[in-house]
Amino acid sequence: MSFAHLEPSEAARLIRHDMTVGFSGFTPAGSPKVVSRALAELAIAEHEAGRPFKIGMITGASTGDSLDGALARADAVKFRTPYQSNSDMRKALNSGKAEFFDMHLSQLQQVVRSGALGKIDVAVLEAADITEDGEILLTSGVGSIPTTARLADKVIVELNEAHPKELQGIHDIYEPLDPPYRKCIPINTPRDRIGVPRLKLDPKKIVGIVRNNQPDDVKGFDDLTDTTRAIGANVANFLAHEHKAGRIPKEFLPIQSGVGNIANAVMAALNDAKEIPPFEMYTEVIQDAVFDLIDSGKVKFASGCSFTISEPVQKRLYGDLARYRQHLILRPQEISNNPEVVRRLGLITMNTALEADIFGNINSTHVLGSAMMNGIGGSGDFTRNAYLSIFACPSVAKGGKISAIVPLCSHVDHSEHSVAVLITEYGVADLRGKGPEVRAKLIIENCVHPSYRPQLKAYLELAGHNSHTPQTLSKAFRMHVQFQETGSMLGVDWN
Amino acid sequence: MSFAHLEPSEAARLIRHDMTVGFSGFTPAGSPKVVSRALAELAIAEHEAGRPFKIGMITGASTGDSLDGALARADAVKFRTPYQSNSDMRKALNSGKAEFFDMHLSQLQQVVRSGALGKIDVAVLEAADITEDGEILLTSGVGSIPTTARLADKVIVELNEAHPKELQGIHDIYEPLDPPYRKCIPINTPRDRIGVPRLKLDPKKIVGIVRNNQPDDVKGFDDLTDTTRAIGANVANFLAHEHKAGRIPKEFLPIQSGVGNIANAVMAALNDAKEIPPFEMYTEVIQDAVFDLIDSGKVKFASGCSFTISEPVQKRLYGDLARYRQHLILRPQEISNNPEVVRRLGLITMNTALEADIFGNINSTHVLGSAMMNGIGGSGDFTRNAYLSIFACPSVAKGGKISAIVPLCSHVDHSEHSVAVLITEYGVADLRGKGPEVRAKLIIENCVHPSYRPQLKAYLELAGHNSHTPQTLSKAFRMHVQFQETGSMLGVDWN
Repeated sequence: MSFAHLEPSEAARLIRHDMTVGFSGFTPAGSPKVVSRALAELAIAEHEAGRPFKIGMITGASTGDSLDGALARADAVKFRTPYQSNSDMRKALNSGKAEFFDMHLSQLQQVVRSGALGKIDVAVLEAADITEDGEILLTSGVGSIPTTARLADKVIVELNEAHPKELQGIHDIYEPLDPPYRKCIPINTPRDRIGVPRLKLDPKKIVGIVRNNQPDDVKGFDDLTDTTRAIGANVANFLAHEHKAGRIPKEFLPIQSGVGNIANAVMAALNDAKEIPPFEMYTEVIQDAVFDLIDSGKVKFASGCSFTISEPVQKRLYGDLARYRQHLILRPQEISNNPEVVRRLGLITMNTALEADIFGNINSTHVLGSAMMNGIGGSGDFTRNAYLSIFACPSVAKGGKISAIVPLCSHVDHSEHSVAVLITEYGVADLRGKGPEVRAKLIIENCVHPSYRPQLKAYLELAGHNSHTPQTLSKAFRMHVQFQETGSMLGVDWN
Repeated sequence: MSFAHLEPSEAARLIRHDMTVGFSGFTPAGSPKVVSRALAELAIAEHEAGRPFKIGMITGASTGDSLDGALARADAVKFRTPYQSNSDMRKALNSGKAEFFDMHLSQLQQVVRSGALGKIDVAVLEAADITEDGEILLTSGVGSIPTTARLADKVIVELNEAHPKELQGIHDIYEPLDPPYRKCIPINTPRDRIGVPRLKLDPKKIVGIVRNNQPDDVKGFDDLTDTTRAIGANVANFLAHEHKAGRIPKEFLPIQSGVGNIANAVMAALNDAKEIPPFEMYTEVIQDAVFDLIDSGKVKFASGCSFTISEPVQKRLYGDLARYRQHLILRPQEISNNPEVVRRLGLITMNTALEADIFGNINSTHVLGSAMMNGIGGSGDFTRNAYLSIFACPSVAKGGKISAIVPLCSHVDHSEHSVAVLITEYGVADLRGKGPEVRAKLIIENCVHPSYRPQLKAYLELAGHNSHTPQTLSKAFRMHVQFQETGSMLGVDWN
């Protein structure tokens, strides 16, 4: 069958108030770009006409400004899951305009299939190619679309010429059976292919194709700073030391690396670390730095859910796909982040902490315990099931007025049980096999910024040795509260 | 070869100050009983002679008083991992006498193999039988002993006649390869056997056998109360409702159930719930109630790590092993709690909260954020990877002076992302697909004790709608602090 060609505004009108819509992609990579903007315009027009227009949005993870930004600015979002990182969307969900359900990304597809998030009315997906019988070549991000598109009543396809048809063979589309019929996900190395290269949909559900030629809206990274360079070096030195000591096997282990400037600096440091042998990656987002490591031979293979890469790196990839295809797979997030596979492969996981506490708990989501930053993303999927779970962050923020390390995290996303190692630009705290008081001393000595060490040591002494975790609830948030009141966490008086 | 027969005191003297010792069992079930008491006596004698004597203890989980209690009272413990529940051991680790490393139980064996906990000098294990070539029939609990005994320099066997040789065939001993060579753990149903019935050790390492005839020191449960009965009924009704709605598949799903009086009440309620079809269990501890459900036909099969059962139930089991063997498997904790298997099987997990907060975070370990109760145990292994993660607890403790539901947990072990449903004797809060403010209203209305509802509603209103999670850090622990000061959480003034 041949599909109707639609203008973006025609496609948008297939979506109505109160519908739940599944969108393709993972980060701006592979997310819809033009139907979403038209949908925002439709919402604005509806609101101006005095009619309600808000939808439920189920994505892979964050998306581009053309989706999250446009719909948030149009106040067109009733419900959002599972992750976002757009400043306008963040405003919407921190002001009660949009309800946000923050989820472990690996669980999304299973929860959607269970029916616990209701039915999917429409799916909007970006494709590089489509056949008449509904075989869809996805683009730079997979996300949750294999599930949401399969379950949706209607599917709208954005056929985006910015992505070449030579992407064929990059994707490995696999959807497990649900329990009690689920079997082993047969991935034993990051290289293993278990599915098919294209998403196959019932062509009768595909209600139209919207043509488009817009690149992924991925920003580049900041240049390395002394701080991020030092964090990267500390991670690399620690891993080299563990490898030499035999606690990481001689073949090394696959690496998961978070997203952002710190992850970028860590990857650069691993590239430079001659003692660390070439390795594989089993990760969520494949970002710019990975391509340098593939080119240098340091990364032998990378499996992920998206290519979240800046325009110059995308040009490099798309200009040499035959070569890169030997080193890369994109999978649905249910598989890229799957606990079964994470545990089996024995990943070394490296994620960024928004805030850590002296006992080793991690806050990944909430600023001052309250405002949502982005969401937990895949950090829980990877951390909890890791072979070696590392968190890294700069020791201070806001020019030293915030210590990233506090007496007690204002929100805990990863409890101390799931955090093996904490690293800042000052050093490494290896928390394995240690009780809370020993961990606290180590973190204060090795990781805390020197200007905050005396005050955190003093906090630790408040409680004495009369409990397992020397925590004093009446004062545990005093640094946070002082920051809220004075703009600085420094110089807290514990009396 | 034939093994030396030792008196308990002779065996104890093979263990020296500063050694790390691995012990068999999981809960009092299968834990050593006489070498441990002799070791405590040796420690006391050494201390009286002015010599240091403290060991590192690696167990499966909690143990009996003959191990944790005896060694704690003798001040013979330098380091303890991964879990305990003995009152004297609890005192030791809350007073700085023993360093306690609280771990996810599924991770212990892997972490021991990695070398991160140092070397195992001696293993002490309880056996029902042993052959001359070192094939050991374990008893009522497996725990981590397949790993610690294999890695130990020396192994001491407590041959305990209280356990019959007819236990042969109950155990499924399997130790996975470590990454990067690990393959799928081929368990697709709780019934699947993947290993061997006996633990095979190098007989040259077995330094002696100590004969013994002491039963597992397992206490029975309290009778059901109105509160635990109401919690059980709420869980059963919720599951029946989800099953009817199709969000639990028609075949039902395997159940994991925690340990203790509430778990016992829940199992009794499931037994009575006619709408719930017969099911299987993939759990950690198989406790008394499970045997009633096997006898009634409600539980078709139960896989676990131990039979933690009272004396009358053990008599029932041991008197009819040929029949019960068709319905039961005991596995090492690395397998009974394995995230790969938990996720694949799609478990409905049911664990007890020590404390919950209105946003759905759970405290499983720390009283008032500071004193260790028992440890995280398997709750993290199961909860995070569950198909449907349920936490239950009575709404109040200490006759109403403590609300189990507070503005913010004083310690978070399971973040809101890993908690699908919260249940008390008052009702059910289904948190799936809901933002923090909606969750909070639901928890307050459905789960909080009526005497605490106004005060928690008032807390929620403090922050307004200016953030994703309406948390007010300066007041978040006011209920806890008031309890510390006055002995009651009731009537907190938020101004």
